[in-house]
Amino acid sequence: MVIAMRKGCPKSQVAKVLAAIREFGLEPRIISSDPRTVLAVVENMSRARAEEIADSLRDMAGVEEISSFDQSWKLVGRYFRGEPTVIEIGGLRVGGPEVAVFAGPCAVENRENFQETARAVAKAGAGGLRGGAFKPRTSPYSFRGLGEEGLKIMAEAREITGLPIMTEVLTANEVELVARYADVLQIGTRNMQNFALLEAAGETDRPVLLKRGMMATIKELLLSAEYILARGNWQVMLCERGIRTFETETRNTLDLSAVPLLKQYSHLPVVVDPSHAAGKRELVPALAAAAVAAGADGLLIEVHPNPDQALSDGRQSLDLPGFAGMMRNLAGVASAVGRTVREATP
Amino acid sequence: MVIAMRKGCPKSQVAKVLAAIREFGLEPRIISSDPRTVLAVVENMSRARAEEIADSLRDMAGVEEISSFDQSWKLVGRYFRGEPTVIEIGGLRVGGPEVAVFAGPCAVENRENFQETARAVAKAGAGGLRGGAFKPRTSPYSFRGLGEEGLKIMAEAREITGLPIMTEVLTANEVELVARYADVLQIGTRNMQNFALLEAAGETDRPVLLKRGMMATIKELLLSAEYILARGNWQVMLCERGIRTFETETRNTLDLSAVPLLKQYSHLPVVVDPSHAAGKRELVPALAAAAVAAGADGLLIEVHPNPDQALSDGRQSLDLPGFAGMMRNLAGVASAVGRTVREATP
Amino acid sequence: MVIAMRKGCPKSQVAKVLAAIREFGLEPRIISSDPRTVLAVVENMSRARAEEIADSLRDMAGVEEISSFDQSWKLVGRYFRGEPTVIEIGGLRVGGPEVAVFAGPCAVENRENFQETARAVAKAGAGGLRGGAFKPRTSPYSFRGLGEEGLKIMAEAREITGLPIMTEVLTANEVELVARYADVLQIGTRNMQNFALLEAAGETDRPVLLKRGMMATIKELLLSAEYILARGNWQVMLCERGIRTFETETRNTLDLSAVPLLKQYSHLPVVVDPSHAAGKRELVPALAAAAVAAGADGLLIEVHPNPDQALSDGRQSLDLPGFAGMMRNLAGVASAVGRTVREATP
Amino acid sequence: MVIAMRKGCPKSQVAKVLAAIREFGLEPRIISSDPRTVLAVVENMSRARAEEIADSLRDMAGVEEISSFDQSWKLVGRYFRGEPTVIEIGGLRVGGPEVAVFAGPCAVENRENFQETARAVAKAGAGGLRGGAFKPRTSPYSFRGLGEEGLKIMAEAREITGLPIMTEVLTANEVELVARYADVLQIGTRNMQNFALLEAAGETDRPVLLKRGMMATIKELLLSAEYILARGNWQVMLCERGIRTFETETRNTLDLSAVPLLKQYSHLPVVVDPSHAAGKRELVPALAAAAVAAGADGLLIEVHPNPDQALSDGRQSLDLPGFAGMMRNLAGVASAVGRTVREATP
Repeated sequence: MVIAMRKGCPKSQVAKVLAAIREFGLEPRIISSDPRTVLAVVENMSRARAEEIADSLRDMAGVEEISSFDQSWKLVGRYFRGEPTVIEIGGLRVGGPEVAVFAGPCAVENRENFQETARAVAKAGAGGLRGGAFKPRTSPYSFRGLGEEGLKIMAEAREITGLPIMTEVLTANEVELVARYADVLQIGTRNMQNFALLEAAGETDRPVLLKRGMMATIKELLLSAEYILARGNWQVMLCERGIRTFETETRNTLDLSAVPLLKQYSHLPVVVDPSHAAGKRELVPALAAAAVAAGADGLLIEVHPNPDQALSDGRQSLDLPGFAGMMRNLAGVASAVGRTVREATP
Repeated sequence: MVIAMRKGCPKSQVAKVLAAIREFGLEPRIISSDPRTVLAVVENMSRARAEEIADSLRDMAGVEEISSFDQSWKLVGRYFRGEPTVIEIGGLRVGGPEVAVFAGPCAVENRENFQETARAVAKAGAGGLRGGAFKPRTSPYSFRGLGEEGLKIMAEAREITGLPIMTEVLTANEVELVARYADVLQIGTRNMQNFALLEAAGETDRPVLLKRGMMATIKELLLSAEYILARGNWQVMLCERGIRTFETETRNTLDLSAVPLLKQYSHLPVVVDPSHAAGKRELVPALAAAAVAAGADGLLIEVHPNPDQALSDGRQSLDLPGFAGMMRNLAGVASAVGRTVREATP
Repeated sequence: MVIAMRKGCPKSQVAKVLAAIREFGLEPRIISSDPRTVLAVVENMSRARAEEIADSLRDMAGVEEISSFDQSWKLVGRYFRGEPTVIEIGGLRVGGPEVAVFAGPCAVENRENFQETARAVAKAGAGGLRGGAFKPRTSPYSFRGLGEEGLKIMAEAREITGLPIMTEVLTANEVELVARYADVLQIGTRNMQNFALLEAAGETDRPVLLKRGMMATIKELLLSAEYILARGNWQVMLCERGIRTFETETRNTLDLSAVPLLKQYSHLPVVVDPSHAAGKRELVPALAAAAVAAGADGLLIEVHPNPDQALSDGRQSLDLPGFAGMMRNLAGVASAVGRTVREATP
Repeated sequence: MVIAMRKGCPKSQVAKVLAAIREFGLEPRIISSDPRTVLAVVENMSRARAEEIADSLRDMAGVEEISSFDQSWKLVGRYFRGEPTVIEIGGLRVGGPEVAVFAGPCAVENRENFQETARAVAKAGAGGLRGGAFKPRTSPYSFRGLGEEGLKIMAEAREITGLPIMTEVLTANEVELVARYADVLQIGTRNMQNFALLEAAGETDRPVLLKRGMMATIKELLLSAEYILARGNWQVMLCERGIRTFETETRNTLDLSAVPLLKQYSHLPVVVDPSHAAGKRELVPALAAAAVAAGADGLLIEVHPNPDQALSDGRQSLDLPGFAGMMRNLAGVASAVGRTVREATP
């Protein structure tokens, strides 16, 4: 149960509500005190009991709203923070005027390859580098990434380009290791409801990019983000990357309605990954432009110097000139919706 | 079975293939002779028999490709016509540089209301008027539209504004009636596989807007369009309007990947209906901008002077100032992708 | 708007409600008078106006419930008829203790073939024959059936076997023709919301098998059936045949939850078509048994004497011994749930 | 890459293939030697390189088939083990003639409650007890279970009833703790692709019940099971529990086609959870009967002594008499398909 107090209600009213909760034998938890005080009761109880308690609290002075936890998110909501959250990652700000473009290969394959990609995308206007060192794979026998070696390669590329790096972390146990190297922790689509991982990420000071599960509703994505915020880490980017439908022409169906919806419900920045959704590189530039036009705060783009030789997801990776071309085209669309993308350096 | 001959192959080769087909006791059908000759055999036969015949034709001079009908479309494909099809509707050209915007209420409710809307959207830059006179309704008891009276109201609005009108036709029997008034026949999502209706529309000289079934694949949409072209009407606009998924925040999930995919596979123009997909008016401007950025040749936008009083679909209709605002914002996005939208008249 | 009067309320109360409706300038329609009187108002009006009228009627004597048409079905509901509907088709009763099994090929291909199948399935315990004479096809070039010739072949097989015949009708215009030959009109998955066809079928005296759209909800299926009942034909069988999902191992996902749900909501019999759902013949016997265990009143099974030579859907057709084997296995399951299947004749 | 050798091919041929692989600078891994030798190469490489190597191995003596890892499962396949796997859990055998019924509440709430349920379901014929001690919850604020205290309560109920206990484990780190108490480790739908958890479960000697992800294909379920077998634990039960579709009348759509499909592809036993799929208790008996008729080797049924007071999922829980009634009805269906369910004790 969440009890939201009226903005600016006197502390004495809050105190009375706290006391009333304790009289029910429950321990209230203050989950927010600004801009308004919000209390939570997390003890387990039957629905009937919960309703009885809610009924008795609802009439107390200062109480504005009581809601069930299952039905709604709290900290991620516009309700709690009216201003959009801007996340600073090195020199990059996600959620401000610049559309932040993270680019790189699906998997980090080797040093040369990654450095070549990093230099090229940096030159073309990328704001961050992405790459997979720990890869989740449907089959136990597929290539699972270079592990810590991959993280080191990414960190070197950060030195060279000055761009922050984002990479996926697969388990709660590996959060500490990955956070030692990475500027942004990526939580992938298969792990959107890996709650132990969400909480571990919530206890770091690293920004988190949380991908929507390929079968998850908008509401479930927000509730998963809530897990991270509830542990004290408010630097979360929500990422739309396609959902599963009956259509087989694309790998997943990119749900761009999610962009305005998420921005309406939440103060968190919204990033779009057209590469995984489309699964075909020739669709990526059009979908990237559409995402920016829809209001996305950032993009994740798979880029590989030689896509046909890629160890994974080559079919959906742009090559280096393809990425540079896409960036040039994005500038106009971004400008038309009051945003910018970083310019290419000559 | 479809037998595509090589471009420019001599007529004598075509004649030999025709003769060979007749020797199998079948009657070949010439379904296209420009830019290349394409023959079809439509008699029913077992798969084994079809393969036997295909094998024997495949080696004949001039034969380029033989394919099963079930597996592919023909006339709608880029294969048949490399140049994009541009459809002329009064002064409006769909498939050219202008992004054609059709606007109007879900249902035509009465003369005053429709004229008010028509004048306002024309002023704001719409290129065509849309409205429903015959409405398909899930429940037999819901309002089904004004029928021919609605068509007359639309025709009057055409006189006033000079804009062409688009309206839905529900059955093959009503095609003639609707075609008497309307400039564009709309075939709705529930009728995408109403083959009798497709064929009846294919025998008119009216441009057709064919909406994707809410459960239909890209490939099925193209095959439904093929029904219309096969009857001789090549003026077909393909319309993405959202597909059914598990997500319940939107009425349907707008599949913008369909835009670049359809344009890659087909020469036909592609139109997007963000209103029906979103089901919530506040999402429409962002999705309309995204559609234009993705390469759409046109938009269908629901507009109502007083959405909360609308007889149907008010929740997703923009009001008149909302539509004008959307049009202003689209101009920049259209320009960024090398297109235009019609300017508002002062 | 639907106004349901209390069971047994005096006629004078009904008369007063009718008068009150007319005072609003509307023409009430009596859609049922037994077991209770139910009135409908079908004029179009805004939501606000509808609420105003409903509010004023709600307090009148004898009025039990007022509901919006969009939100609910009426005639198909348990609410209107507590007893399950049993449909008599020749000697076959659908909705009674016998699980009615309709068997036959996807398409009627020729006389010999169909008669061979009809004799064999009749011997194995089928209660009806099915076959397609008019076939809806995704591609305009595919085999579309033998048309009236196919209907004649089916009618001959009825003479030989004594079993009633069921076949699909594609358009409102063809209802009369098909009804001249067929005992049951089948409305296919692509036509579930072809409202003109539903109404035409509702005006015949032929039982109708209405297939669920592959993208339709349970509620939409019931509302489509309502179209038929509202025209006076109460002999409707609802048919679950699989819905579209992301899974590609089966052609569609058979939704057996629909069986108990439909029987809970409606008095109409429920039939299951495992052949089209599975798309693979080896799954059919298990799914047929599951359907019977779930409470299905009937089955549609595709059978072909030589499935690998079938003109359509051979992959999902049982051969003749396969069908006989399936029937033997169904007997025990049917008996376990208090039902029977017809025994094979020696 | 997986290289399957012909059954009974001489060891010298295997040795030559191993040598050839090493010449490519790769280290082959023998993943099975009975009934045939199967080798795996797991080093990462480009697709082009993989094809080159496959081409050169394909012609060697004794090589039967070479396949990519992404495309297929191995150890879980019928290909590797023709006989169905039977899993022994205390006195219960899953995969043999008895349909194993695991029953209990969604969450273990307290000792009295759980013991009452355990005694009642044991008496009614359950073969195992289920209950949640660690609960995955969409919202961070929902009741997450009693943790180890819940495991102790379950273990006590095992002492009382003699029935084995199954409970969910959420993270790799908790596998050891849960395995100390539980007879069967349950991996839930949200964790089907939590690969660290799958591998941790694969290293225990506890049977594992692996639930299909609500968005996972049959193939992905089998590949997730492969993760467990590849670590040496072959005691895996596959569980169908409903997939996400557009239908909202049920919580998920139970895909009973999965039962015959999984049994065709794999030797592992298949269990069905109709409670979570339906989300409504009144549908559970019909779906349980359907699952048994379709060939399921077991069932998971949610039971609560007072469903309306349950802390979670009460809507889909049977009460104690409801469960006993369902068990009585299952006996006949099981018998009709050559199976048994345990009889109630008087």
